[in-house]
Amino acid sequence: KMDKPRKTTMLKNMLNSNELEFIMEAHNGLSARIVQEAGFKGIWGSGLSISASMGVRDSNEASWTQVLEVMEFMSDATDIPILLDADTGYGNFNNARRLVRKLEDRGIAGACLEDKLFPKTNSLLDDRKQPLAEIEEFALKIKACKDMQRDPDFCIVARVEAFIAGWGLDEALKRAEAYRNAGADAILMHSKKSDPSDIEAFMKAWNNQGPVVIVPTKYFTTPTQHFKDMGVSMVIWANHNLRASIKTMQETTKQIFKDMSLVNVEKKIATVKEVFRLQRDDELVEAEKRYLPKS
Amino acid sequence: KMDKPRKTTMLKNMLNSNELEFIMEAHNGLSARIVQEAGFKGIWGSGLSISASMGVRDSNEASWTQVLEVMEFMSDATDIPILLDADTGYGNFNNARRLVRKLEDRGIAGACLEDKLFPKTNSLLDDRKQPLAEIEEFALKIKACKDMQRDPDFCIVARVEAFIAGWGLDEALKRAEAYRNAGADAILMHSKKSDPSDIEAFMKAWNNQGPVVIVPTKYFTTPTQHFKDMGVSMVIWANHNLRASIKTMQETTKQIFKDMSLVNVEKKIATVKEVFRLQRDDELVEAEKRYLPKS
Amino acid sequence: KMDKPRKTTMLKNMLNSNELEFIMEAHNGLSARIVQEAGFKGIWGSGLSISASMGVRDSNEASWTQVLEVMEFMSDATDIPILLDADTGYGNFNNARRLVRKLEDRGIAGACLEDKLFPKTNSLLDDRKQPLAEIEEFALKIKACKDMQRDPDFCIVARVEAFIAGWGLDEALKRAEAYRNAGADAILMHSKKSDPSDIEAFMKAWNNQGPVVIVPTKYFTTPTQHFKDMGVSMVIWANHNLRASIKTMQETTKQIFKDMSLVNVEKKIATVKEVFRLQRDDELVEAEKRYLPKS
Amino acid sequence: KMDKPRKTTMLKNMLNSNELEFIMEAHNGLSARIVQEAGFKGIWGSGLSISASMGVRDSNEASWTQVLEVMEFMSDATDIPILLDADTGYGNFNNARRLVRKLEDRGIAGACLEDKLFPKTNSLLDDRKQPLAEIEEFALKIKACKDMQRDPDFCIVARVEAFIAGWGLDEALKRAEAYRNAGADAILMHSKKSDPSDIEAFMKAWNNQGPVVIVPTKYFTTPTQHFKDMGVSMVIWANHNLRASIKTMQETTKQIFKDMSLVNVEKKIATVKEVFRLQRDDELVEAEKRYLPKS
Ligand SMILES: [Mg+2]
Ligand SMILES: [Mg+2]
Ligand SMILES: [Mg+2]
Ligand SMILES: [Mg+2]
Repeated sequence: KMDKPRKTTMLKNMLNSNELEFIMEAHNGLSARIVQEAGFKGIWGSGLSISASMGVRDSNEASWTQVLEVMEFMSDATDIPILLDADTGYGNFNNARRLVRKLEDRGIAGACLEDKLFPKTNSLLDDRKQPLAEIEEFALKIKACKDMQRDPDFCIVARVEAFIAGWGLDEALKRAEAYRNAGADAILMHSKKSDPSDIEAFMKAWNNQGPVVIVPTKYFTTPTQHFKDMGVSMVIWANHNLRASIKTMQETTKQIFKDMSLVNVEKKIATVKEVFRLQRDDELVEAEKRYLPKS
Repeated sequence: KMDKPRKTTMLKNMLNSNELEFIMEAHNGLSARIVQEAGFKGIWGSGLSISASMGVRDSNEASWTQVLEVMEFMSDATDIPILLDADTGYGNFNNARRLVRKLEDRGIAGACLEDKLFPKTNSLLDDRKQPLAEIEEFALKIKACKDMQRDPDFCIVARVEAFIAGWGLDEALKRAEAYRNAGADAILMHSKKSDPSDIEAFMKAWNNQGPVVIVPTKYFTTPTQHFKDMGVSMVIWANHNLRASIKTMQETTKQIFKDMSLVNVEKKIATVKEVFRLQRDDELVEAEKRYLPKS
Repeated sequence: KMDKPRKTTMLKNMLNSNELEFIMEAHNGLSARIVQEAGFKGIWGSGLSISASMGVRDSNEASWTQVLEVMEFMSDATDIPILLDADTGYGNFNNARRLVRKLEDRGIAGACLEDKLFPKTNSLLDDRKQPLAEIEEFALKIKACKDMQRDPDFCIVARVEAFIAGWGLDEALKRAEAYRNAGADAILMHSKKSDPSDIEAFMKAWNNQGPVVIVPTKYFTTPTQHFKDMGVSMVIWANHNLRASIKTMQETTKQIFKDMSLVNVEKKIATVKEVFRLQRDDELVEAEKRYLPKS
Repeated sequence: KMDKPRKTTMLKNMLNSNELEFIMEAHNGLSARIVQEAGFKGIWGSGLSISASMGVRDSNEASWTQVLEVMEFMSDATDIPILLDADTGYGNFNNARRLVRKLEDRGIAGACLEDKLFPKTNSLLDDRKQPLAEIEEFALKIKACKDMQRDPDFCIVARVEAFIAGWGLDEALKRAEAYRNAGADAILMHSKKSDPSDIEAFMKAWNNQGPVVIVPTKYFTTPTQHFKDMGVSMVIWANHNLRASIKTMQETTKQIFKDMSLVNVEKKIATVKEVFRLQRDDELVEAEKRYLPKS
């Protein structure tokens, strides 16, 4: 057990490797475990998915400690690193650095902070103002977080929202450089175009100054090889477990409602035994043998 | 708004109606909203589903306040009544009655308490001891809860685990009568047989002493008309949203992992716009027009 | 029970009465109960005291749901209205109005919002920037909260930080009027001068446009009759239970450390029986007689 | 920083040292900090004090995660080890071992488990039943906790309630030996006699089989030298910060209520500056210089 690398180190290595790496969205302990079982090497704790699963909006309606609790369940259910979509850090530098300490305590490997204002607005919402933080303020927030972490491998990813906010390449580049200089372990360059032109332009101008992470939710038709060729470090599949579960829950619920019966859904869904397996009931069975009195 | 019945009243009316009523499992705000949109008149806050979604076991590994927080998100996301699967009430009569007060504060319509010992063991687990509470102790717990509630229509459902624990009809009947006499608004008679024989025997012996709720997870092939004919009041579809989402998340995650691409899943899952709709972003858009400065 | 006025109504009546009313700080369920037992008609849920008792700073280091939980314990322990020192509402109008809903659920009678930026800085700290919110933005936040509340008597108090921030009477008056027009049930005019000159100037200019609340922590030597004469509605004794307990805990702990014995402190402190009384153990004794099996 | 011993190691060393050691009660971050500043080497996270400060009873009315949150604030506010009064572990072996993991994550040095049933009853309450756990069950609970901890120095203290429950020395000794053999790092032998005769009898019979901790709340007149002579390892001053603060808050509140003024209390209580000092505002002042933009 001692020889196993820490989750933070695992994430840092992924960011710095020469391979294109992939992490997949989860929004609770269950989906996190499913991501791990599928073979992924890391998990994206999506702000959109977590808020939507709670039934609230991706506008910091859930408190940061409520999000933290979800992260703890996700961490407890898995052995692979989790990168939290930490929005703006939920306030100023002091809130953000406090979050970093709390994430470390709970075994989370890194936090991705975006250069917006609290409370945030989801980047994919149409026709919404997307005001950005001042560059200096956000760079200092990154620095405060890096100074706070105790584990040297805890990762801070700085997410640049310049393209989202309607600014061009110059602003995106200037921000990425400032955040990298402030200590960010990687830059997440976000774009909501349906083609990869923003990312292409950025990768060219960036010229390998450090690891770059992307979120191709909108430009999903771009072949993955193209991301490799551009030199991207990591791809986030950002909200697809949530979206898959919405579709199937809507269909399942409608079917049961219409049928007033389970017969048409029973075979299409996971068994109760599979639920128990995912909960690792087998460990508890063994533990009860060891730790409950025989009589 | 004042003329709308309270959620508690809606649940009580369902239990007491002459129709066979149905409530459907949810385990977070999102699935609760989906249940409501499908047309269901009520929601089952399943202990198995909530614990599994968190990645922990259905053995009271999550604290009762963590469950309470999930219930609050579910209640906030919906307008129909929620019946919480409250296990044993998470301790003795004092813990249980304290829970009732907290549930009322959060707009939950009722609590279903089962006559087991804390911490509980899931009823569908094979080869596990299922020790029952003493009848008198559990009946007094029901009474304590009924005495505590402020809203006269808050519902306490007493769940009898006699069949689950391997006892026969006599014990089941004796317990049901004791709990009904203690004030329970309904009896939930549980069975894990794959046929409805336990329920049939009970319904006959019970002879309409009050509303009866069933959970046909294992005897799902029984035609619903048969439950009507027996005089059952309410059927709980207990864990099918969770099980549906497990299956689809496993498949979606595997597909993306294999493909290293989203192209094969994008069309099969809900859109990002649908996520926003379920989060009721439209209300926030309107609110921002009213409450954010124009400049 | 039905005839007793709601806590919200009790607070509203205090704000609107012709008498000068007083509310006293509490920071947890225990101190809230002590305030009630002393005869006070209302409680101030102080942000400074709550944060200090937790060991964190009055800079929104605790999340808003952590504060909410403290408020719930305070509300459960008492029958008199509580006014929460809600800082800025913990974000924008949407965070603030969400808080209002949650406070109502927990039986809190009102929220005091201040026209600063999130995260806030304590008003009594020297040499700190105290940036104010834009008037229009804050007025709309007040309006959003008033529109959100379901109980018509829930109180929103708008706290004006103009004097704290170094602005003069004109700004203070302009803000107070804007917030009152936006629906605030009362204005809290804050000052950190050691004399009441700020308040005097304001009260004269204000000319009875609505209830005014003050916090004479710094100008505590001003005779209370003077506040009455000026037409103040309510006085908050804002942090004195916390400060009293700090002094005595420091002395008690030092004494025990020095003595390596309890003999010199035992007589100076509350008995263990008094602790049980404050916890209302008597109610539990009676409940155990009713709800625990005799055998 | 790396050279500083872990908090767990510090607590373990205290238990195993040849000196008589002392730890002092705290119930929130503030009192924990005061205990540290007074010179104490460790802190007792008292269940009675924490529940009373919340305004609830020492009967597991607060959930275990609510207690955990208090512990986290206490740990964050201090550098010395904290031993949590963990009651029964809040359930069976599985709840208890889960708690251990969570405590480790939050920097708590140890947990003291008592051999009672969940929900617990405070040991000092008169005329209350104090049912004990079966010896084997409790010993296995201790073992489960020891097997779960990752930090080898995390301490499990087994608290024997045999004297409290009215059993004699034989039962106390049998239990202490069973728990020690199950892996307990120390035995806490509780007594509510006003003289130390229970403890004397036990220490003689125990014959140095391992560290013993005592709580002389009731036999406080016994000279501390006598505990040393008996071979006791550690003394807990268990609830005196809470009791001191109750007394002073009652007096302060009554005085202010009577006077309708602060003039008679201002000099007797800590200053607002002292509150800021205890909150370590100085660190935030420095951090703001580093991490807030100059402009
Ligand atoms: Mg996001
Ligand atoms: Mg269940
Ligand atoms: Mg304040
Ligand atoms: Mg205790």
